[in-house]
Amino acid sequence: MQFHLDGFEPGDPSIADPVERTPRPGASGSVPADVDVLIVGCGPAGLTLAAQLAQFSDVTTCIVEQKSGPLQFGQADGIACRTVEMFEAFGFSERVLKEACWINETTFWKPDDAQPDHIARSGWVQDVEDGLSEFPHAVLNQARVHDFYLDMMRRSAAKLEPYYARRFVSLQPPADSSDRTQRVTVTLQRQDAAQQGATETIRARIVVGCDGARSGVRAAIGRELRGDSANHAWGVMDVLAVTDFPDIRCKALIQSAEHGSLLIIPREGGYLFRLYVELTRLEADERVANRKLGLDDLIAKAQRILHPYRLDVKQVPWWSIYEIGQRLTDKFDDVPDDAVASRLPRVFIAGDACHTHSPKAGQGMNVSMQDAFNLGWKLAAVLRGRAKPELLHSYSAERRAIAKQLIDFDREWAALLASAKHDGAKADPAETQRYFVQHGRYTAGTATHYAPSLLTGSDAYQQLATGFIVGTRFHSAPVIRLADAKPLQLGHVARADGRFRLYLFATDQDPGDPESAIHRLCGWLAENDASPLRKYRKADEDIDAVLDVRAVFQQHHRDLSIATMPALLRPAKGKFGLTDYEKMFCPDLRAGPDIFTLRGIDRTAGCMVVVRPDQYIAQVMPLGATAELAAYFDGFLQS
Amino acid sequence: MQFHLDGFEPGDPSIADPVERTPRPGASGSVPADVDVLIVGCGPAGLTLAAQLAQFSDVTTCIVEQKSGPLQFGQADGIACRTVEMFEAFGFSERVLKEACWINETTFWKPDDAQPDHIARSGWVQDVEDGLSEFPHAVLNQARVHDFYLDMMRRSAAKLEPYYARRFVSLQPPADSSDRTQRVTVTLQRQDAAQQGATETIRARIVVGCDGARSGVRAAIGRELRGDSANHAWGVMDVLAVTDFPDIRCKALIQSAEHGSLLIIPREGGYLFRLYVELTRLEADERVANRKLGLDDLIAKAQRILHPYRLDVKQVPWWSIYEIGQRLTDKFDDVPDDAVASRLPRVFIAGDACHTHSPKAGQGMNVSMQDAFNLGWKLAAVLRGRAKPELLHSYSAERRAIAKQLIDFDREWAALLASAKHDGAKADPAETQRYFVQHGRYTAGTATHYAPSLLTGSDAYQQLATGFIVGTRFHSAPVIRLADAKPLQLGHVARADGRFRLYLFATDQDPGDPESAIHRLCGWLAENDASPLRKYRKADEDIDAVLDVRAVFQQHHRDLSIATMPALLRPAKGKFGLTDYEKMFCPDLRAGPDIFTLRGIDRTAGCMVVVRPDQYIAQVMPLGATAELAAYFDGFLQS
Repeated sequence: MQFHLDGFEPGDPSIADPVERTPRPGASGSVPADVDVLIVGCGPAGLTLAAQLAQFSDVTTCIVEQKSGPLQFGQADGIACRTVEMFEAFGFSERVLKEACWINETTFWKPDDAQPDHIARSGWVQDVEDGLSEFPHAVLNQARVHDFYLDMMRRSAAKLEPYYARRFVSLQPPADSSDRTQRVTVTLQRQDAAQQGATETIRARIVVGCDGARSGVRAAIGRELRGDSANHAWGVMDVLAVTDFPDIRCKALIQSAEHGSLLIIPREGGYLFRLYVELTRLEADERVANRKLGLDDLIAKAQRILHPYRLDVKQVPWWSIYEIGQRLTDKFDDVPDDAVASRLPRVFIAGDACHTHSPKAGQGMNVSMQDAFNLGWKLAAVLRGRAKPELLHSYSAERRAIAKQLIDFDREWAALLASAKHDGAKADPAETQRYFVQHGRYTAGTATHYAPSLLTGSDAYQQLATGFIVGTRFHSAPVIRLADAKPLQLGHVARADGRFRLYLFATDQDPGDPESAIHRLCGWLAENDASPLRKYRKADEDIDAVLDVRAVFQQHHRDLSIATMPALLRPAKGKFGLTDYEKMFCPDLRAGPDIFTLRGIDRTAGCMVVVRPDQYIAQVMPLGATAELAAYFDGFLQS
Repeated sequence: MQFHLDGFEPGDPSIADPVERTPRPGASGSVPADVDVLIVGCGPAGLTLAAQLAQFSDVTTCIVEQKSGPLQFGQADGIACRTVEMFEAFGFSERVLKEACWINETTFWKPDDAQPDHIARSGWVQDVEDGLSEFPHAVLNQARVHDFYLDMMRRSAAKLEPYYARRFVSLQPPADSSDRTQRVTVTLQRQDAAQQGATETIRARIVVGCDGARSGVRAAIGRELRGDSANHAWGVMDVLAVTDFPDIRCKALIQSAEHGSLLIIPREGGYLFRLYVELTRLEADERVANRKLGLDDLIAKAQRILHPYRLDVKQVPWWSIYEIGQRLTDKFDDVPDDAVASRLPRVFIAGDACHTHSPKAGQGMNVSMQDAFNLGWKLAAVLRGRAKPELLHSYSAERRAIAKQLIDFDREWAALLASAKHDGAKADPAETQRYFVQHGRYTAGTATHYAPSLLTGSDAYQQLATGFIVGTRFHSAPVIRLADAKPLQLGHVARADGRFRLYLFATDQDPGDPESAIHRLCGWLAENDASPLRKYRKADEDIDAVLDVRAVFQQHHRDLSIATMPALLRPAKGKFGLTDYEKMFCPDLRAGPDIFTLRGIDRTAGCMVVVRPDQYIAQVMPLGATAELAAYFDGFLQS
């Protein structure tokens, strides 16, 4: 798709008339008096959480935002492979892939050895290593990601629309924090012209602050961002420009001899691009605002760095000047460390309210959305009575560790990109390139690795599937669906529906044999009273309501007979008892190595892979480990 | 996507609340008094034409439909690979692929040799041969295809909405058929409750009858469908059912010993499927209505054919009983054969108004849409003054030949599928399977081959690109975009925007060399007064407004330098003169054989491939054939 040729226009580029692209105004009237969950802030974290909760018609959610309407310009734009995997579960990955710019290659530029005031290309790397994800690294205006979430929320069971123009004022915890029936009371102030200054209160079982680096919710629970003070000022601008710089449609990292560093990010539509421009090193405790830098300074600096290439800027739809700082909140909920055993969290924070850092690693929006994806299914499971409330403690434990890694990574990366190091030495472009390649998995979002916990099992059986590392995201691979021979990605059966997935990788036995390991396991799952499928499902629900079992066989799909397969894998569902034919898969033998080879699965023993609703691998177990499987779910589910 | 589990629901399955899936009511008020084009009928042909014309804000179009609102149930469902290629140009292929059922395998069943009252599988074939298209064969309720077109029309420059509840009454040709300023007057009668019976008139430069087999427009121009009378009665039903028939999610052709034939088509959502059931052979001149057959007969017959498999029908959202007949209209416009030299067409017919046949080859909706895709760009080119009006004669000439092939194919296929032949002999299932494989390209929609004409050049230079057969559709292949290394399908650069594409396949010379064949050709195209780019472009238009030039080089993308490429391939466009970086491509060397090998392109000589706005190859020419290129466009364009 090409667009923005005659200037940047916010909104959906597939609508010809810019006037009709104007976003919807949000919900009208007053906020509801009582809800299960109140989300403060319509950024990537808030919208991911709202979109997740909107899937459940039995959870009431309200989302409020201080701004007067949906975002239209600027902010983040990087979408990591891992995030597109999550969007696939949310049902809009294809919209992102169609509209976004794909980052395919990254190039590195340094001062030309012969002529140091000229820059010269020093290296060229594929942006995402082969096989890391079935999705590319993409770049798209954050506002469009918001639009996709908002669209999904409108279509969902709960039909959520944000309430805009609401300023968070305060929150009042319940008088008795151990009484789960008491609610948190939040006070909001209206910012819309008609009701300017009017106060609203809303009582919520759970409050989640997704209200950014200056989070009012965070302040209300007495937590704060702590970390380095900034010492580098950078500028960022989205531009439409004419240039003879040859890599303007690639991601390019440029380190000049005398004028600092520049990062180029090509953007959606084929013409727009973003520049991150190193402006100046600040003195200790100095603020960039004091330097009185403006857009002209930004453009002039970019032009000097790009020399001898020309940069003729035609339009700048958005720009900003900022200081880099890496800061982190010590805990992401309202329960003090020493009260975890006795209290349940009522208030959470997510996204920039928890961690701030430089934008240039393209991580901010991605990590924030993953915060919310981690929290969303847990809140739903507890509020719907499916999980024990103690599950909620796992959010801060899991996500703070990830945020800490992000902060550390960002500090290192920001220092590398800055032209002058703390010790005054020049940055080495070759080192930058090495670091970039080495940390490709990190920037792709696939390096997240949760530590063992209630939710993440041990790696005792890791050798049964060496490519499905316990604690990391389920890495999809191609398969063929048995019933209709459709080629697809196994990971794409996972929807953002709050369900666990149990992938059964069969042994090399005939799965039609009632004595085969898979047949016996399916029998236990379907019929034994200790099976989580029986134990945690409500009487009127389908067999896969809590735990969705899928099997992958080793045989060619034409060599298997559906009629002899375990009944659990062709379940009768819904009011008519129709057969669900989408539970069984075979290897895709035409696409190179099959899934058993790609993921190092033991072909003789087979295995079970338990995957959480947020797509992380909870455990790998032998096909016979029924007691361990039951124990895992008994740890946090309730009936 | 899985849906329809608890019963069929019309509309967009991604909207949770069925009430909100209700389609929009269409345009309100009276039809406009004067338009460029009036389209009668909102079926696949009418909507394809409307969606095409809606891309041009300088063409006024009105589309009317007798029914009171958008289609919601039944009718066609087969979407050939070729049709998905067209949807890609229209911008909604990804929506179809996401929601549709993919047909991956077709199975064949015959009476079991040992036990002839049981059916047994006799064969199994991949539905679409490897490499035939980058898209699969898909199946989706016709109503959803309509929805995608309607959505696209709303978003388009012309913002078209159909006027529903309008019955076509009559049309009045202009008094002087040679006076192009005079218009055709059409009388409509309103069918909506509020205005029941009221008459509207609309004056149009062009009228297109897409009003089905009983077309009023066809009758008004004195043409009729002619052909075989029907002699076989069939039933069709969309069902939700429980069955132990193993291939229920594959396309399956079943020929029983005593009860006739059955065709199974799996459908979108994972549960629904369609059955075509052979009911009875009719006597000469007998009508199926006389047999008083109902849904119960249909179900009972299907159950007998499927024996020993069980078919327990739970819901039938749509069904119909029909007779097979193959009929064709002699000409698809209002100009008699002997007046072609002296008169221009004012009235056209498309789709079922031109040709009717059995539905089981899955061709009806596809051929109808291709009729309209052929006509749409020609109408736009003439109405916008870019092409000579005589171009309009080519529509009937090209599409009637295709319809004749369809009728012939369908007659043969319908006879094969019917259990008893005209001579009383039993059908041979092996022959059915052979025929199916042999005609796979036909059913995929890729066999269309236009004969030499004003629009389709000779095959004099066919040896320069043996895989781009002149007169057939441009067969896409993978490439890498030079500027950003994005892997994509070359054919997907073609949008349904009325422009011709000129693909330049470079020689193995360095394309940066000003003396290379591609450099010299680009120089001529950009600068010579005889070049169609200069001759037919209006003064204020971009260089690619009429003819979109794209080049494919043989080198790896990292081995080429954008700065040395011909200026035409990195044109300055729009009000800012921004560079369009999407004109140059390199081979995709990671995906197996590259585009030069896949399409048999002469690596030493290179070639030009001229592709029409409807994606058909007009001509293959040497890179030096500038005079022939100019002559081709001078044949039908005007400035």
